[in-house]
Amino acid sequence: MTTPLDLAPPVLPALDPAIGWAEVPGARLGVVQAGIKKPKAPPFRDDVVVLVAPGTAAAVVTRSTALAAPCRWTRDRVPGAIHAVVVNSGNANASTGPQGEADCAATAQAVADALGCAPDAVLVCSTGVIGVPMPMERMAQGARDAALRAGQDSSARGAGAILTTDLVPKQAGLRIGGLTVAGMAKGSGMIHPNMGTMLGFVATDAQVAGADLQRLVAEVADRSFNAVTVDGDTSTNDTLIVQATGLGPVAAPGNAAWDALAAGLEAVCRELARAIARDGEGATTLVEVVVAGAGSDAACRDAARAVIRSPLVKTAIAGRDPNWGRVIGALGAAGVPGLDHCDLDFAGVPVLRAGRPLAFDEATASAALDQPDVRISIRLPGAGLGFAWGCDLTADYVKINADYRT
Amino acid sequence: MTTPLDLAPPVLPALDPAIGWAEVPGARLGVVQAGIKKPKAPPFRDDVVVLVAPGTAAAVVTRSTALAAPCRWTRDRVPGAIHAVVVNSGNANASTGPQGEADCAATAQAVADALGCAPDAVLVCSTGVIGVPMPMERMAQGARDAALRAGQDSSARGAGAILTTDLVPKQAGLRIGGLTVAGMAKGSGMIHPNMGTMLGFVATDAQVAGADLQRLVAEVADRSFNAVTVDGDTSTNDTLIVQATGLGPVAAPGNAAWDALAAGLEAVCRELARAIARDGEGATTLVEVVVAGAGSDAACRDAARAVIRSPLVKTAIAGRDPNWGRVIGALGAAGVPGLDHCDLDFAGVPVLRAGRPLAFDEATASAALDQPDVRISIRLPGAGLGFAWGCDLTADYVKINADYRT
Repeated sequence: MTTPLDLAPPVLPALDPAIGWAEVPGARLGVVQAGIKKPKAPPFRDDVVVLVAPGTAAAVVTRSTALAAPCRWTRDRVPGAIHAVVVNSGNANASTGPQGEADCAATAQAVADALGCAPDAVLVCSTGVIGVPMPMERMAQGARDAALRAGQDSSARGAGAILTTDLVPKQAGLRIGGLTVAGMAKGSGMIHPNMGTMLGFVATDAQVAGADLQRLVAEVADRSFNAVTVDGDTSTNDTLIVQATGLGPVAAPGNAAWDALAAGLEAVCRELARAIARDGEGATTLVEVVVAGAGSDAACRDAARAVIRSPLVKTAIAGRDPNWGRVIGALGAAGVPGLDHCDLDFAGVPVLRAGRPLAFDEATASAALDQPDVRISIRLPGAGLGFAWGCDLTADYVKINADYRT
Repeated sequence: MTTPLDLAPPVLPALDPAIGWAEVPGARLGVVQAGIKKPKAPPFRDDVVVLVAPGTAAAVVTRSTALAAPCRWTRDRVPGAIHAVVVNSGNANASTGPQGEADCAATAQAVADALGCAPDAVLVCSTGVIGVPMPMERMAQGARDAALRAGQDSSARGAGAILTTDLVPKQAGLRIGGLTVAGMAKGSGMIHPNMGTMLGFVATDAQVAGADLQRLVAEVADRSFNAVTVDGDTSTNDTLIVQATGLGPVAAPGNAAWDALAAGLEAVCRELARAIARDGEGATTLVEVVVAGAGSDAACRDAARAVIRSPLVKTAIAGRDPNWGRVIGALGAAGVPGLDHCDLDFAGVPVLRAGRPLAFDEATASAALDQPDVRISIRLPGAGLGFAWGCDLTADYVKINADYRT
């Protein structure tokens, strides 16, 4: 009996389900139904949120060269002193040319007017259909109204309002080392059809310098949101914004509050990222891939993402087929070295040791795959540890994306 | 009314459906049922082919680091004096360790014994399940028997014997400038489940130096087989072998026969590559993507492949949804520059000019997508022209790959 591999992502602090974005001291939000999201006629759904958390903010946005107007707006203003973030679902304001840039600025202005701050202190996020002009009358009105409601709505309502094709709202939060970190996210993939985009919003009461926060957010994003793939691509609108209100402890690199902030932020972002993978369009199984020994942490993460990006690995899991050859195929196609010496466990079942196939019971392995959470573990001869999360690929994914507009 | 873009791959010489691999002077083949391919009990299906074409051969094999034993064997022997190629379907001899290397050598030896040549003059190709030892008794017997049958079987039977999940055999050939070029291929994707792999076999009677042929084959492969994607990956066993028997004109860089060989080889390989895309698992539509202006021919080809690799573009086409935002999303995610100035036609319908969305009739565009052949044309501000072929992504793809072994 071969011993399973003992590989897992680092353990992070436990989350507290009672802590949402609006439970962070200094953070409050407002939600309205502006008529941006389908249906376009009443009864409307919640589709505009204003997240007020005056303080310092950092953000990472999509690396896509088809960057949407709101991503450009946000990127150019972080890190910095930020008062609020306005988010709409239903229209991505992407591929909209100069009009899109103007619409984005007008949206920030509407929030600034309502809150009495500068428009440059307002970040903007949009998600929805690409290439359609923003309905600005409704958007400006909604942005104003949501800003004026700030403090009256719950984290849960905010987390629901930012959703598009998602089935469930995604929230995570905790208190750690005297400070609070909490957030919400949307996305059932890194890229989506008309209704695209991963968005993540996290708040903390830490008092932290903008440059420090920016660096931390970039690092944590690589180990959380950037480690998720549903369909292997990056949207025009992906954005993660972290707002720090500064009402809590001072967090500076080296001190205890900094370590708490780093651990808390990673715990929140990992949970939100995993929730996105679990809610992948058509998905039935959350797949965690852990790779050790591909050369470096980054190389291991890339290898892990290559595995869970592979349509053949994803369909094998959907079919509960312990078809580990597809994992090796995906690693090989990604140029991962050392496969002749690879150890591999598929859903906890050892199937390969030192590059040699093991005999295993197909029925047992198939049953191990028939779970809401499945792990694929890969050990190679080199250094490093990395991980990625994704989901299976079912016929429902195709149906959702082929029939979306019909 | 906006004029559609006038972008297309270069026109190549016309093919002659009467010309198959075995119609090349000096080329003959034999086929047997060795019991490698499913079903494993009689009645067996054709699964071992020996392609005898004594002369010079060149080949390109997969760049996967999970290179299968037969790919390593072939790569180490080209360009060179090659007598024959032995091909089996049903077992990929991949992830099989040192035993796989020995089995590959034994297969070449069996063919060499039957034909009276050196084992180093025999190339080997395998396609099928990964990680399962080759049933060597049946394989060696089949290789011997097929070699002894060389000259008795047709191109069509050979083209059928190499198939796995493919629905149709793929052949192409022509006579041009006094020489013959013809070939066959298998594959419904660049990577497949248990039954993996793109294989292509082309013969010509040109008399050509090994190094010249190798360089030409690499160039043509980039514009044909390497421009196809079904599910975005590279298998452990992908191989293209071109055998030149030397019974026809001398082809040397600069002379007329060389130009004929180059044009003929590209025409044959492009047709076989397109046939693979058309026969993609679950596919209903062949999609040709043409990109101009991404900076260089290679950058344009990469951009074109990024578009047709995108699951969201592929599902949009399956759903006959002229959802061009997904094309921009895919180009952006691939880092393609100049998208703010992009012209785009979707199935011949102008949808974007200089980065600005055009109004178009959804029903007309949807009908244009409901065709067996669809083209997406993209013009960017820079230099270069490139193209790629792929197919739509349907629920049948998922069914084929999820349920393959059950």
